[in-house]
Amino acid sequence: MISRILSAELAEHAGQRVEIAGWVHRRRQLKSVSFLVVRDRTGLTQVVAPPSTDLPGEESVVRVAGLATANPQAPGGVELTGPRITVLAEPEQAPPFELFRPEVNAGLPAVLDHAPVALRHPGLRLPFEISAAGVAGFRATLDRLGFTEIHTPKIVGSATESGADVFGVDYFGRRAYLAQSPQFHKQMMVGVFERVYEVGPVFRAEPHDTARHLAQYTSLDAELGFVGDHRDVMAVLREVLAGMVAEVRERVPRAARLLPGVPAEIPAVHFADVSDEPDLSPARERELSAWALREHGSDFLFVTGYPMAKRPFYTHPDPARPGYSNGFDLLFRGLELVTGGQRLHRHADYLAALAARGEEAGPYEGYLRAFAHGMPPHGGFAIGLERWTARLTGAANIRSATLFPRDLHRLSP
Amino acid sequence: MISRILSAELAEHAGQRVEIAGWVHRRRQLKSVSFLVVRDRTGLTQVVAPPSTDLPGEESVVRVAGLATANPQAPGGVELTGPRITVLAEPEQAPPFELFRPEVNAGLPAVLDHAPVALRHPGLRLPFEISAAGVAGFRATLDRLGFTEIHTPKIVGSATESGADVFGVDYFGRRAYLAQSPQFHKQMMVGVFERVYEVGPVFRAEPHDTARHLAQYTSLDAELGFVGDHRDVMAVLREVLAGMVAEVRERVPRAARLLPGVPAEIPAVHFADVSDEPDLSPARERELSAWALREHGSDFLFVTGYPMAKRPFYTHPDPARPGYSNGFDLLFRGLELVTGGQRLHRHADYLAALAARGEEAGPYEGYLRAFAHGMPPHGGFAIGLERWTARLTGAANIRSATLFPRDLHRLSP
Repeated sequence: MISRILSAELAEHAGQRVEIAGWVHRRRQLKSVSFLVVRDRTGLTQVVAPPSTDLPGEESVVRVAGLATANPQAPGGVELTGPRITVLAEPEQAPPFELFRPEVNAGLPAVLDHAPVALRHPGLRLPFEISAAGVAGFRATLDRLGFTEIHTPKIVGSATESGADVFGVDYFGRRAYLAQSPQFHKQMMVGVFERVYEVGPVFRAEPHDTARHLAQYTSLDAELGFVGDHRDVMAVLREVLAGMVAEVRERVPRAARLLPGVPAEIPAVHFADVSDEPDLSPARERELSAWALREHGSDFLFVTGYPMAKRPFYTHPDPARPGYSNGFDLLFRGLELVTGGQRLHRHADYLAALAARGEEAGPYEGYLRAFAHGMPPHGGFAIGLERWTARLTGAANIRSATLFPRDLHRLSP
Repeated sequence: MISRILSAELAEHAGQRVEIAGWVHRRRQLKSVSFLVVRDRTGLTQVVAPPSTDLPGEESVVRVAGLATANPQAPGGVELTGPRITVLAEPEQAPPFELFRPEVNAGLPAVLDHAPVALRHPGLRLPFEISAAGVAGFRATLDRLGFTEIHTPKIVGSATESGADVFGVDYFGRRAYLAQSPQFHKQMMVGVFERVYEVGPVFRAEPHDTARHLAQYTSLDAELGFVGDHRDVMAVLREVLAGMVAEVRERVPRAARLLPGVPAEIPAVHFADVSDEPDLSPARERELSAWALREHGSDFLFVTGYPMAKRPFYTHPDPARPGYSNGFDLLFRGLELVTGGQRLHRHADYLAALAARGEEAGPYEGYLRAFAHGMPPHGGFAIGLERWTARLTGAANIRSATLFPRDLHRLSP
């Protein structure tokens, strides 16, 4: 391994000879002195050299040996003096904008086209640090609650779950489809592990060009058995959100100012009390979120009891309120972030639900068979990872929270 | 939440009235007494009832309230007496084999066809408990080493990485492909995060029906910058394997007897010293593994220096030994488990490597551009999760370590 210390460790080594490695973030040659700012995964280090030194250009990959020297004016209070610089790789092209400037002087398309270099900008990299920490918090919380991580097929034999917006795959000469969610498989595995989760890609052949939809996104899925009803699922989701926020706070200190509080009990409203329409419009979601913040000081709001007509066939109805379901959405800062609910668990109920919708049971055979073998009352939820990160960072477009977005127009890099 | 304790907690509650929930694993009605064994995610609980009690059948989903009563003859030393049993769901079909028998009386195809019920068998569920723990160990180790988790596209615009065995996708009327690995994207992200990992599905349109290949498997990918050469990558891989083994030991006590030791330094042989062929045959891999075990007491063996001709174009050559590479494989108990190595990092080297193979640079444009912006020396590896679990459990077929395998013939459930 190239023997090196990280920028974040420099202060501990004041007075010692050390070596750092990274990219030249900024080169400044003044009359009396030359500066190099070196960027590594933990931050920046200022390197000071005599004025005549021939310094490598920005985005060069370098190793720098030198003396860690206290200087109150340097970032972090310590800089590297008397440097010996080795260039490991020279860039052959300039970045599409100057990475060392605090503001990004480029539009989203340019950033996405040049992601491998554009995301070196600390501001553009932030969403992905938040994302990684959030996923770690999701898993840590569910591990603690006795969940088992699973990996389910992304290629499925029938386009059954919602019927529309699926990608076709040529599967050894047969027609197959990319899975729109792990819904069926995670439910089936409740019969084996009781509590399961999966972090993985889901695919939507979304034909609309919007700021909140992607053709591939990362879904944080959980499903648990032996629930009373959907409220038990909501309680687990609340724990998960608190765990995600805590892990971001721990791992990404510079994101602290972006983080919401997670109320011990997230406020909830019933669909019937907030809408006369069959579904909530984006505008209505924003209004309700604003209300929750104003009245309850909460960035989160549950909307429970969505009409059965608007939920998938596996949704459990509300036994006390015909036409309404034990399904919920969670709004976060004006946008639907999570969908969840209690599911049917009796085989006969599945057959009846499909029949009521005029659907054949045949295409669902493998899924339905699981319920013929005895399944507990269960439910679950799915969090859209990129939506979570985009909401936290205030990004106007979900693509700012996606390393390499896939959409109607974008298939590379 | 259904108020319950878990089987594993029963002993702590001896003398108290408690409630458990789970599946009827075994029902036995004798002349003088009736037994019910209830299975939950943590184990089994014996329930004792009067002989005349009407007990639900196997795989019924039940809640059982009763008195936790010490009985040295009961599994765990405590059983439930004076039970009040509530049936939550009745099975409508019998499992394809009796789940309560220690031996599985069914072949692999029957198990796979009926996975949602067959995997309830504790023996068949074991690989997936090991798998979940292993992945947790993978991540925990890399998190500790400063890696960032990423999520990369599974739909790509060109079938470039190996050229063969790719699945085609109809992408909004365009031709696209399922990614065979996150190789290109993880390398590009070394330029942003220095150290990255991803756990995700990869797709191979493998036209052969073998016991060790799948059309979709879970790849544990890591890539790190600022390496000296491939030996730094091997050192990180060794840490990762140790972390995976430790986490399985911690989370799945019944798997302890299956676990290998991970030597502080895993033995390594150079390809040129062990083969006259251009590649290692499966038989040769088994021989070498047997040798490592005999001579070094190691279940693991690195084979370094694979011939350049057999490795992908992005492989870094061995500067001291023309024709050989800084690429390696790791054999585990007779089978290739990991492929890895140092990669090229200079843009000009990529162009030369492609030209030498008679390939156009065009299809690689987005990938190559990353190297034009300054990339550090780097390398990485990919562990096949299902292979890892199958080797640990001694499964003859990798499908025994896959919840819902996808292959030439299998597209459901």
